[in-house]
Amino acid sequence: VKAAIQKICIIGAGNVAWHLGQHAHAQGLEVAQVFSREIAKAEALAQLIGAKALTELSILDPRADLYLLLVKDDAIDEVAARLKDSLPADALVCHGSGATDLAVLHKHFQHCGVFYPLQSFSKNRSLDFYKQVPLCVEATEKAAENLLLDLAKKLSRQAALVSSEQRFTLHLGAVFVNNFVNKLYAVAEGLLIEKDLPFDLLLPLIQETAAKVQDHSPFEMQTGPARRGDLEIQKKQLHSLDKDARWQLIYGMMSRFIAQDYGKGA
Amino acid sequence: VKAAIQKICIIGAGNVAWHLGQHAHAQGLEVAQVFSREIAKAEALAQLIGAKALTELSILDPRADLYLLLVKDDAIDEVAARLKDSLPADALVCHGSGATDLAVLHKHFQHCGVFYPLQSFSKNRSLDFYKQVPLCVEATEKAAENLLLDLAKKLSRQAALVSSEQRFTLHLGAVFVNNFVNKLYAVAEGLLIEKDLPFDLLLPLIQETAAKVQDHSPFEMQTGPARRGDLEIQKKQLHSLDKDARWQLIYGMMSRFIAQDYGKGA
Repeated sequence: VKAAIQKICIIGAGNVAWHLGQHAHAQGLEVAQVFSREIAKAEALAQLIGAKALTELSILDPRADLYLLLVKDDAIDEVAARLKDSLPADALVCHGSGATDLAVLHKHFQHCGVFYPLQSFSKNRSLDFYKQVPLCVEATEKAAENLLLDLAKKLSRQAALVSSEQRFTLHLGAVFVNNFVNKLYAVAEGLLIEKDLPFDLLLPLIQETAAKVQDHSPFEMQTGPARRGDLEIQKKQLHSLDKDARWQLIYGMMSRFIAQDYGKGA
Repeated sequence: VKAAIQKICIIGAGNVAWHLGQHAHAQGLEVAQVFSREIAKAEALAQLIGAKALTELSILDPRADLYLLLVKDDAIDEVAARLKDSLPADALVCHGSGATDLAVLHKHFQHCGVFYPLQSFSKNRSLDFYKQVPLCVEATEKAAENLLLDLAKKLSRQAALVSSEQRFTLHLGAVFVNNFVNKLYAVAEGLLIEKDLPFDLLLPLIQETAAKVQDHSPFEMQTGPARRGDLEIQKKQLHSLDKDARWQLIYGMMSRFIAQDYGKGA
């Protein structure tokens, strides 16, 4: 058993690999190799972090402390199967997915885990990884879990041991606060465009709404017509949405659920 | 017609009066008086900004350049009716509401307008008013509109002329990006609590989701299983929500609308 994870190989060169790879390098870890089927993608990342770019799994360094499998969810199983032939039996392999069970890797590897960065990455947006990316860790045995947790603590101020079942819920929560929230932003953008209004006017409110829950429970921060039980304004607003039945459905449902949760509804 | 608005009286001492009054004072305007039915509330604000606290509308200074009616929506009509008896016929009176038509004031006053700060205020949260509070202005005549717009530009980097119809839409948009978004945060909080997970793990994602749309259209920023058309994970996530039919309804509906808008849906 190693004392600490020092040398890493990254399989994948997408957004997660891009941010995690650069941050690991900046924190003094050795990222020895970056694998991608597309050599240009592997090289773009590798050259930033002093790593070698690979397009063949068979030439992976067999002595890395950790192999990070940062590929799309539906490719994890297949790439893990191929990876198995290139690595020693005691290799430690992790995937970085929120939605994939650890068991998918455990079929192929005895020592394996999950190293899940809970953030939405874009290649052209920089972020402060240490402050803005919680790392959720899980492993098939305690020794590996400790190694991964130590690594996570080095890379993030939010490092947590999270089971596969918990991680599934976290990922689902992320769908609500990221995908669905963004869709509500888009609906509002559409409403404003129809009235020749710049979406910019809502941006400070969007930021403040996100800022308020950084130190308060969203349940306590709830405001608005539904929370107050103001039926007159709700009726007017619902009626004004009659150009798109879908936005009416969202409005009616969200308002009803809010009203119910604050004792104002039926 | 005045050259600029310099002396203001504020009617109301709630969250909007609290923030707007302090900011106007800090920007060098004279806030002469603050009215509230509750003297303690009027005094708490008045003493911060060198104003007099009042509980009688009849002793309002008749020579202020602007009377800001910052009371609850459903009190505007009634307070305006009473206010009329205390002010000269040429007084300029504005309300600060997103949801109330200018006509409600125009019944009582010839010179009137709207001075709507588009933000969600809390008394115990400070914010940078100039950067974080768009001001939406409207008036019954051009001269007053120009005065109000000049004042708005002094107080905010986002000052806009907005009709009552447009303002109604802005306020509706605010319900989506503030009230409904906050409800989604609360749903996610509930999901996490059930699995003994701290809501903190989602906070960086919440901030990043809000940050991304500050310079990109939310329509372009959409990600997630519904956008990708990943039906397998959607099915699993929907199924896992079977403890609360309401969250299943939200999940199903939001996912369907996202899928439809990106050509992945039925």
